Amino acid sequence: MCLVSGGMDSAVVLAEACARGFETLALSVRYGQRHACELEAAQRVARALGAAEHIEVAVELGQIGGSALTADIAVPKDRPAANLGHDVPVTYVPARNIVFLSIALGLAEARGARDLFVGVNAIDYSGYPDCRPEFLRAFEALASVATAAGAEAGARFRVHAPLLELDKAQIVARGLELGVDFALTHTCYDPVSRDGVWLACGRCDACQLRLAGFARAGLRDPIAYLS
Amino acid sequence: MCLVSGGMDSAVVLAEACARGFETLALSVRYGQRHACELEAAQRVARALGAAEHIEVAVELGQIGGSALTADIAVPKDRPAANLGHDVPVTYVPARNIVFLSIALGLAEARGARDLFVGVNAIDYSGYPDCRPEFLRAFEALASVATAAGAEAGARFRVHAPLLELDKAQIVARGLELGVDFALTHTCYDPVSRDGVWLACGRCDACQLRLAGFARAGLRDPIAYLS
Repeated sequence: MCLVSGGMDSAVVLAEACARGFETLALSVRYGQRHACELEAAQRVARALGAAEHIEVAVELGQIGGSALTADIAVPKDRPAANLGHDVPVTYVPARNIVFLSIALGLAEARGARDLFVGVNAIDYSGYPDCRPEFLRAFEALASVATAAGAEAGARFRVHAPLLELDKAQIVARGLELGVDFALTHTCYDPVSRDGVWLACGRCDACQLRLAGFARAGLRDPIAYLS
Repeated sequence: MCLVSGGMDSAVVLAEACARGFETLALSVRYGQRHACELEAAQRVARALGAAEHIEVAVELGQIGGSALTADIAVPKDRPAANLGHDVPVTYVPARNIVFLSIALGLAEARGARDLFVGVNAIDYSGYPDCRPEFLRAFEALASVATAAGAEAGARFRVHAPLLELDKAQIVARGLELGVDFALTHTCYDPVSRDGVWLACGRCDACQLRLAGFARAGLRDPIAYLS
């Protein structure tokens, strides 16, 4: 079970799971994100990397409110790089990763899978609490007592986060090694559609982290940006 | 934050939260349940008990599959009472309570609430693993590391399960003490609509547990059953 958002990190994680020999089931969540075009990217990525199946589940996280990704709140632009990762920005969606992992856990249990792959990263990230190793360990502990598989048969669910300790340049490099086509991915929180093509803003936290990663890896990002 | 399904247990829990002086926000989840009429009951219950607000969030748990409550699998009927609670039946929805509590947690964080109330019960129950005390404690541990409120400000979320150790007859008695009108609630997994009225089957696990609870409390259940 691999959570695939359509972004570059989860694409690399899906490639990593495939490279380790897992038969992969990709899961994307339509949660009311303003950048729903990332779901088209998720489809492209899952197909290109050979996921056995791609499932999309909708959940109305917009009802929770309070986030620039799901409500009518402006996405912050041009934040100083030094600030990224040191506070929790308004793009934080309360409890998003618990909800995503919980849905993944339910699917995993129903399909007999025990390994969950997730593209969280605690180095070049936006400061979200649910991207930290202590969150992942607490979720693993919960998974075993929350499921019939865990409670009856002692099954242990593992949450794999192979990018957890990598910086963005290392993620780019690892993706290229694994054959990920980053042109298929979408990262921007606030993209603009021009003539049927989604252009990344280049200025939100997500774009900044992505662009800095490619720059430090000495590579050009293949996706299109608003100039 | 109180999860309100429309059933009798969560109605008693909502009444309990109100009686303890909490301003209550009721949350119901439309998850693809075949007995979606329980959501109408949830609305009636939230209104009658004076919840400050009632929010309904949709999540497509039917995509997970494998459960008689969300897929085209027959709901078991007339199971011997001795079996209830001793195995995990086909009405189990994988990871349902983690998903519900995660959405409740997100809403609680967004609204500044720290107390989650939930009607799980580990005595007269259907044997679901995510109704046990160890599940609730593991979820509390997760909540503190998964949220910005927990990670930045050290907020502790509490999961209250006031019915955890009560049997069904005690739940009925407690509800009547608190002024719950059980005629507003809906319990059956497999109801039938006749002339615009939902009739409970009286034979699924949920109906059996409910009817036995009223009988042991020496009371008549006020809802309508298929005779």
